Amino acid sequence: MHVGILTAPLRTRPLAELIPWAAEQGIRALEIDVRPGSHLDAQTVSDAAIDELRELMAQHQIRISSLACYANMTGVTDEQARSGRESITAAIALAQRLGVDTVCTLAGFPASGKNRAQTIAADLPAVFRPLLDLAGQSGVRLALENWFATNIQHLDHWRAVFELLPDAHFGLNFDPSHLDWQGIDVNAAVHEFKDRIFHVHAKDVSVDLAKLKRVGYNGEGWWRYTLPGYGRILWGDFITTLRDIGYDGVLSIEHEDRAFPAEEGFSKAARCLNNLI
Amino acid sequence: MHVGILTAPLRTRPLAELIPWAAEQGIRALEIDVRPGSHLDAQTVSDAAIDELRELMAQHQIRISSLACYANMTGVTDEQARSGRESITAAIALAQRLGVDTVCTLAGFPASGKNRAQTIAADLPAVFRPLLDLAGQSGVRLALENWFATNIQHLDHWRAVFELLPDAHFGLNFDPSHLDWQGIDVNAAVHEFKDRIFHVHAKDVSVDLAKLKRVGYNGEGWWRYTLPGYGRILWGDFITTLRDIGYDGVLSIEHEDRAFPAEEGFSKAARCLNNLI
Amino acid sequence: MHVGILTAPLRTRPLAELIPWAAEQGIRALEIDVRPGSHLDAQTVSDAAIDELRELMAQHQIRISSLACYANMTGVTDEQARSGRESITAAIALAQRLGVDTVCTLAGFPASGKNRAQTIAADLPAVFRPLLDLAGQSGVRLALENWFATNIQHLDHWRAVFELLPDAHFGLNFDPSHLDWQGIDVNAAVHEFKDRIFHVHAKDVSVDLAKLKRVGYNGEGWWRYTLPGYGRILWGDFITTLRDIGYDGVLSIEHEDRAFPAEEGFSKAARCLNNLI
Amino acid sequence: MHVGILTAPLRTRPLAELIPWAAEQGIRALEIDVRPGSHLDAQTVSDAAIDELRELMAQHQIRISSLACYANMTGVTDEQARSGRESITAAIALAQRLGVDTVCTLAGFPASGKNRAQTIAADLPAVFRPLLDLAGQSGVRLALENWFATNIQHLDHWRAVFELLPDAHFGLNFDPSHLDWQGIDVNAAVHEFKDRIFHVHAKDVSVDLAKLKRVGYNGEGWWRYTLPGYGRILWGDFITTLRDIGYDGVLSIEHEDRAFPAEEGFSKAARCLNNLI
Amino acid sequence: MHVGILTAPLRTRPLAELIPWAAEQGIRALEIDVRPGSHLDAQTVSDAAIDELRELMAQHQIRISSLACYANMTGVTDEQARSGRESITAAIALAQRLGVDTVCTLAGFPASGKNRAQTIAADLPAVFRPLLDLAGQSGVRLALENWFATNIQHLDHWRAVFELLPDAHFGLNFDPSHLDWQGIDVNAAVHEFKDRIFHVHAKDVSVDLAKLKRVGYNGEGWWRYTLPGYGRILWGDFITTLRDIGYDGVLSIEHEDRAFPAEEGFSKAARCLNNLI
Amino acid sequence: MHVGILTAPLRTRPLAELIPWAAEQGIRALEIDVRPGSHLDAQTVSDAAIDELRELMAQHQIRISSLACYANMTGVTDEQARSGRESITAAIALAQRLGVDTVCTLAGFPASGKNRAQTIAADLPAVFRPLLDLAGQSGVRLALENWFATNIQHLDHWRAVFELLPDAHFGLNFDPSHLDWQGIDVNAAVHEFKDRIFHVHAKDVSVDLAKLKRVGYNGEGWWRYTLPGYGRILWGDFITTLRDIGYDGVLSIEHEDRAFPAEEGFSKAARCLNNLI
Repeated sequence: MHVGILTAPLRTRPLAELIPWAAEQGIRALEIDVRPGSHLDAQTVSDAAIDELRELMAQHQIRISSLACYANMTGVTDEQARSGRESITAAIALAQRLGVDTVCTLAGFPASGKNRAQTIAADLPAVFRPLLDLAGQSGVRLALENWFATNIQHLDHWRAVFELLPDAHFGLNFDPSHLDWQGIDVNAAVHEFKDRIFHVHAKDVSVDLAKLKRVGYNGEGWWRYTLPGYGRILWGDFITTLRDIGYDGVLSIEHEDRAFPAEEGFSKAARCLNNLI
Repeated sequence: MHVGILTAPLRTRPLAELIPWAAEQGIRALEIDVRPGSHLDAQTVSDAAIDELRELMAQHQIRISSLACYANMTGVTDEQARSGRESITAAIALAQRLGVDTVCTLAGFPASGKNRAQTIAADLPAVFRPLLDLAGQSGVRLALENWFATNIQHLDHWRAVFELLPDAHFGLNFDPSHLDWQGIDVNAAVHEFKDRIFHVHAKDVSVDLAKLKRVGYNGEGWWRYTLPGYGRILWGDFITTLRDIGYDGVLSIEHEDRAFPAEEGFSKAARCLNNLI
Repeated sequence: MHVGILTAPLRTRPLAELIPWAAEQGIRALEIDVRPGSHLDAQTVSDAAIDELRELMAQHQIRISSLACYANMTGVTDEQARSGRESITAAIALAQRLGVDTVCTLAGFPASGKNRAQTIAADLPAVFRPLLDLAGQSGVRLALENWFATNIQHLDHWRAVFELLPDAHFGLNFDPSHLDWQGIDVNAAVHEFKDRIFHVHAKDVSVDLAKLKRVGYNGEGWWRYTLPGYGRILWGDFITTLRDIGYDGVLSIEHEDRAFPAEEGFSKAARCLNNLI
Repeated sequence: MHVGILTAPLRTRPLAELIPWAAEQGIRALEIDVRPGSHLDAQTVSDAAIDELRELMAQHQIRISSLACYANMTGVTDEQARSGRESITAAIALAQRLGVDTVCTLAGFPASGKNRAQTIAADLPAVFRPLLDLAGQSGVRLALENWFATNIQHLDHWRAVFELLPDAHFGLNFDPSHLDWQGIDVNAAVHEFKDRIFHVHAKDVSVDLAKLKRVGYNGEGWWRYTLPGYGRILWGDFITTLRDIGYDGVLSIEHEDRAFPAEEGFSKAARCLNNLI
Repeated sequence: MHVGILTAPLRTRPLAELIPWAAEQGIRALEIDVRPGSHLDAQTVSDAAIDELRELMAQHQIRISSLACYANMTGVTDEQARSGRESITAAIALAQRLGVDTVCTLAGFPASGKNRAQTIAADLPAVFRPLLDLAGQSGVRLALENWFATNIQHLDHWRAVFELLPDAHFGLNFDPSHLDWQGIDVNAAVHEFKDRIFHVHAKDVSVDLAKLKRVGYNGEGWWRYTLPGYGRILWGDFITTLRDIGYDGVLSIEHEDRAFPAEEGFSKAARCLNNLI
Repeated sequence: MHVGILTAPLRTRPLAELIPWAAEQGIRALEIDVRPGSHLDAQTVSDAAIDELRELMAQHQIRISSLACYANMTGVTDEQARSGRESITAAIALAQRLGVDTVCTLAGFPASGKNRAQTIAADLPAVFRPLLDLAGQSGVRLALENWFATNIQHLDHWRAVFELLPDAHFGLNFDPSHLDWQGIDVNAAVHEFKDRIFHVHAKDVSVDLAKLKRVGYNGEGWWRYTLPGYGRILWGDFITTLRDIGYDGVLSIEHEDRAFPAEEGFSKAARCLNNLI
C-alpha cells in the first residue's frame, strides 16, 4: 500500500512544482483530475505535456493511481450528462495512453421522479454499458466513488449495481468516510465488496454528538469530513482489513477538511498514513 | 391526558358508526380530517351535519382534539399552495364554529433551491403570518406536525420557526416517532418546547439494526412506523415527561403501522395507552 | 395471533386438568410434547385418548399449535439418532392423524470433528431428506427451533440449511431469546426468514452487564432465560414485526424461567402477551 | 410479591381514609413513616391508635411492610444524630409492638472531612452497633435505603458496610432508581446482595440524553425520578431477578415523580406493577 | 498549533536546565506557574531573573504560552480569597511585563450554601469584575480552566459565566479530559465556546468500565487522568476541531498521569502530539 | 517497557539472521519457542548453541523475555499431557540455565465431561503443583496465556486459579485481544490481576459489526486477530494502565494477523508500539 493524493485542491499549482513537493511529503501517487481546467485535460492534453509528466514522475518516483473524472450522467441535465460521457470517454482514452489502470468517476444522482434503487435499475445499465465496453477494450477499470449523495449511497445499492453490471473491471473508489457517518460498518463493506475495491479514498469524519441529539441523522453540522488520522475512523484497523482482502493499492487522500490549508493538510495526513502502511 | 385517534384511515366509515365504535375502544377524542373528501369537509360542511356530530359526541362522551388539515404551502406548486391556504382558512373557521381550539397542519416542504433553514427564514413568515392572524382572531391555535420531511425536521428548525413567528397560539403537533428514528432525544424536545406542545401524535418506531449497518441512517427499510406500544419508544417515560411540562391533552394515535388493519390497530394501541395514562 | 404454551413443565398434570386450567389463563393453544413419557406419546397413543383430547379442546376452545419432538439426529450416538428419527416419524404420523400442521424439532448438534457449517453441509441433507418427504406427503410442516446449541446457532446457518433443503414445508420454530443474548438482531431475522417462520416460542432474556464485563460473551451467568415480558425483549415491537411478515400463529410460551413455578409463570406470561396481541 | 406504598406524600390523609383507598387501588402494604408528625409517631403512638390501625388493616387486607424512619446519624449535627438515634430506637420498639419485621432507615451522610468509604470505616460501626443489637433482640431487621447521597452510594460501599457489620438482620431497602441513573447495573446489585435485600422501593428514572451531553453525569436536570413504569427501568426484568434470589416481599412505591399528584400517581404505578407481579 | 507544558511537576528544576531540556523534547512553550514558591514568583521576581528567562527562551526558541495562577476566590476562606486575588493581580502585572497575553486561573469553588449556578450568579461578578478591568487595561486575557470541581463544571455553567461577564478577554483554558469522563461531548464544547478558547490543556482519560458498573458515575476509581495519547480521547479529531474554530495556540500538556515520571511523561506526550499537529 | 516478539512465525529463520534483523526493527526482546522443532529445543539444546545465542543477544542488545512452551496438560490425550509436562519441565530447566525469569505456557483445555470451572477445581492443582514447585526451586515464574479456548477464558476463571494456586511465581502472560473481543474490560483485568501480570502479549482485534448482528457473539468471522495498532484496542491507554500497576516488562508481539507477512508485520507493529512506550 502507498499514500497518494487527489490533486483537486492543488489544481492551480504546476505539476513541475507539485510533484517534487509531493515526493518530499512521502506521497507516492497522484489521483489526477482530468476534466477541463485541471492539470491534465483529458480532451486536450498534448503529447509534450504527457512526456513532461512522465519525466517528473520517474524523477520523483511518483505514479498515477488513477485519473479522476467525477462527472455524473443521471439526475443531471441532458447537457451535463452528455458532457460527463465525453469526459469519461476521454479519460479512458487518456488512461490507456498513460498506462494508468483506473478511471475514477461517480454513479450519478437519482433521476427525476425515481429513488436511487429505481435509477440504478432503470438508468444505469444504459449509461454505463458503452463506457464499460470501451474501458474493457482499453484495459482500463472504472471505479465509482461511493459518495453518499449519488446513487450508490449504501451497500444494497452497491450490490444492485454490480448485479446489473457484473463486469470484472467495474468497481469502487472506496471512501470509508461516507460509510462511517451514515452508521454503515466499514469492515463489512470491505469484506463484502472485496473484488470491487480498485482504489481507496483516505478521508475521515469528526462528529459532534451533542448536536446530533438535537438535529438528528438527517441534520446538518453534526459531522464533517476531516483528513485521515484526524477523525474517528481507526486507520490501522481499516488498513489491515484492506490488506486482508488483498488490496495493495493507493490510499488517496481526499482533502475536504476545512481546518487545514491544502499543502499542510496533505503533508500531515500523509505522515499519519505513512506511519501505518 | 386522554386517548384519541387521527381519523384518516377510517375516513370511509360514517361518523354515526365510527364514534360509538371509538367510544367502546376507550377512545375519548377524534382528530378529524377536514379536507375535501373527508368526514367533515371544512369548506362545505352543513349545520345539520355539525349538529349530528355534536349529538354523537355528547352521547358517546367523545370530543374533537383538533381539526386535521395536513396541507403544505411551500415546496409545492402554486396551485397546491393556494389550495392549502384555503383549506387551512376554512379549517380555522370550522374550528371556531365547533369550539375546537386547535388546527393541525404542516410546515411545508423546502422551497425550490433552498434548504429547510433557508425556506423557514425566507418563506414561512409570509405564508403563516396571515393564517396566524386569522387564527388568533378566531381563538384557534395552529399546530405543526413535526414530520421529518417538512421544514421542521429537527429542533434547530423548530427554534428558528418560533423565533420568527413567536405567537403564543403557534405550536406543535408533537410526534415522537419522527424524532426517535432520527436519533433526536424525545425528552429533550419536550423540555425545550414545552410551551409549544399543543397536541401529541402517538406513533412508534420499530428498527432493524442489522439492516441499518448495511444501508445507513439515510437508507430505506431499517425503521418503520408502528402503533404506540409496538415499537421502541418508552411510553410511560414519554407520558410522565409530557405531564411534567403541564401537558394534559390528547395522545392522538396516528395509525401508519402496515401490520395492523385500521380498527384493530386503533383498538390495541388505545388499550396500551389507556393502561398508562 | 394467539397465546400458547409448550407443555413440557406440566407434563405430570393430566390433560383433563391442564386444558381447562390453560383456557382460564387465556391460553388458546398447546405445543404438546409427544415423545415417550409425555402427555401424548406419538408411538403409543390410543384412539380413545385422542378422542378425549379432541373433546377437551373443543370444550375449552384450545387448539394444538404443534407437536413437540425435540430430538437430535446429529452429534449424538447412533442409538440416539435412530430413536430421534423414530420419534419424529411417529410425530409426523400423529400430526396427520390429529390434523395438526406442524411438528417442532431440532437441527442436531455439530457432528464429531465438524463445526456447525460443516455438519449442515455434510450431514443434514441425509438426515432430513426422508423426514421432509414423509412430512410433505402427510401435509405436515417441520419446524426447527433455533436453539443456539444446535446446528442453527445463527442466521448464516439458517440460510445454509434452507439453501440445501428448500422445501416450502421446512421452517423454523422461531425463538427470539436465543438471538437476543447472542447480539443478533431479532427483527432482521424475522424479515430475512419471513417464509420460514412456522411457529414462535415466547421466551425472554435478562442480563447482568457488570458480570458480562468480567466473564465475557462466552461466560456463564451473565444472561438467563425468562418468561416473555420479564426480560429485555420488546414484545410489542416483536409482535408487530411478526404481523408485518404475515405471521398469524401462536406465541408459544416456553417456560425456562427458574424464578417462577410452572403454573404461575405460564399464567403471568400469558397475561403479558394477551395485553399486546 | 405485592405492591405497597411509602405513605409520606399522603401524610395528611387520615389512615381511616387512606387504607380503604389504598386497598381499592390494589395496594397491599404500607411503609408507614413513624417519625414525629407522621401518621404513626413511634415515640407517642397510643395503644388505641394501634388497635384502630390493626382493625383497618385486617378489614382491608393490607399489611405494614416496614416502618420508615429515614433519619441520618453521621454527617449531621450532634443534635440531629441524637434525634435520629432516638427515632430509630423508637421505631424498633414500635415494630416489635406491631409485629412488623423491618425498619427502613438511612446510612448517614459523609462525616465532615471524610469521604463515604472513610465514614463507613470510621463511624458506622459505632453508630449502628447498638441499634443492631437492639433490633436483633427485638426480632426486627434494619434496612438501609441506598440513597445515592448517603454513605452507601455504590456497591463497593455496600460491601464495606456488610463486611464491617455482618449481622444477618442488617440489610437494604433496595431502590433501583438510585443505581440506574448512576450507570450501575441493577441486576448485578440484586445478585451480589441477594441476602441483604429486605425491602424494595419501586421508583423509576427518566433521562434527557441531549442535556446529559451538555451537563455531564455530575450535572443537574438530565435525570429525574419517576413512578415505576414511567421511566426506563425494565420492571418485568427486575421482578424476575428479585424472584430469582428468593425475594417475595413488597414493591413499595416511593412517589417522587413531580408530574403526578400523590393519589393519582400511587394508583397508576400500582396498576403498572400489579400487571407484572 | 504547538506543544507546551504546564511546568508544575518540574518546579524544582532550574529554568536554565528545564528550558534546554524542553526544547530537545519538541516542546515549544511553557505555561509557567507564578505563585509563590514556583519558578517565577509574580510578586517577587527580579528584572535580572526575567532577563535571564528571556535569553533562555530566545536561545531555545521557546515561548511562554501563559502564566499559571490556579487560585480560587470563592468557596474558600477569606484569607485564601484575598491571597488568590493578590496572586492573580500580580500575575496580570507580570504578564504585561513579559508580554505574555494570557493568565490562566480558576473559577472558584461553590460558595457555602450555594450550588455552582448560584455561586456564579451571586458571587462571580464581584470577584472577577475588578480583575477583568485590570486585565483589560493591561492587555492580558484571563482564562479559566474548566476543572470539574470548580464552578464551571459543565457547559451550562460556562454559558452562565460568559453571559454575566461577556468581556472579550475573558475565556477558557480548555481541558478536554474534564469533559470526557463526565460524558460531555468535547467537540460540542469547542464549537459552542469557540470565541472563548484562549489556551488548551492536553490531558487524557483512561476508564475501567467494569468498575463503573459497580461504583457508578459518582464513584471513585473508574477513571483517571493520563497523558495525551494515553487515554481514550481522539487527539487528531480534537486538533482538527480546534483548528476549525481558528485556534492556533498551545496544547499545554498537564501531567497528572501517576504512571509516568515527570520528564518521561512530558517527553512521550510531546512526541504523541507532535506527530499530529 | 520494551517491544519483543514471539518468534513462532519466524521459526525457520536462523537466530544468526533473526536477531540482527529484529534489533534493526526496534525489537528488544524475544519470546523464544522451546518446544521440539523450534529455534531452541529445551530438551536437546547444546551449550554451544546457547553460547552463540548469548553472544548474538549481547551484540545486538536483545534479551529473552520468556521461553514459550504453549503445551496443554488437561483436555488432551494422556500422551499429549505427558509430553506437555516434559516440555515445560525442560523449559524451566533451560530458563534457569539461561537466566530467563519466565516460562510462558497454557492453562489446559476443559477436561472431558467438565466445564472450565470444574476442570480448574478438579484437575489444575495436581497438574501445576509439581511444576510450580520445580519452577520455584529454579527461580523461574510460570505465566499462563489467557487464550480464551483454554481453562482461563475469563476473569472468574483467573481468580479461581490463583485462589487454588496462590504461589507468587504463578501468573499470566496477559493478552488483551482475548479479552477485548469477548467484551471483557481490559483495564479492569489489569487492575484486578496486577500482581499476576508477568508478561504481556501485544495483539489486537478487528471487528465487523454488521456480521456480528447476523452471526452473534458465538459466531465465526465477526472478529479476527490483528497486529497491535491495527485493531480497536487503545494501546496508549493499555500502556499507561500497565505502567500504573508497575509493569515494566515486554510487549511481546504475537503475530496472528493473516494480512501481514511475518517480517513486515513484526516490523510495523514494533514501529507502532515504539511510538508509544
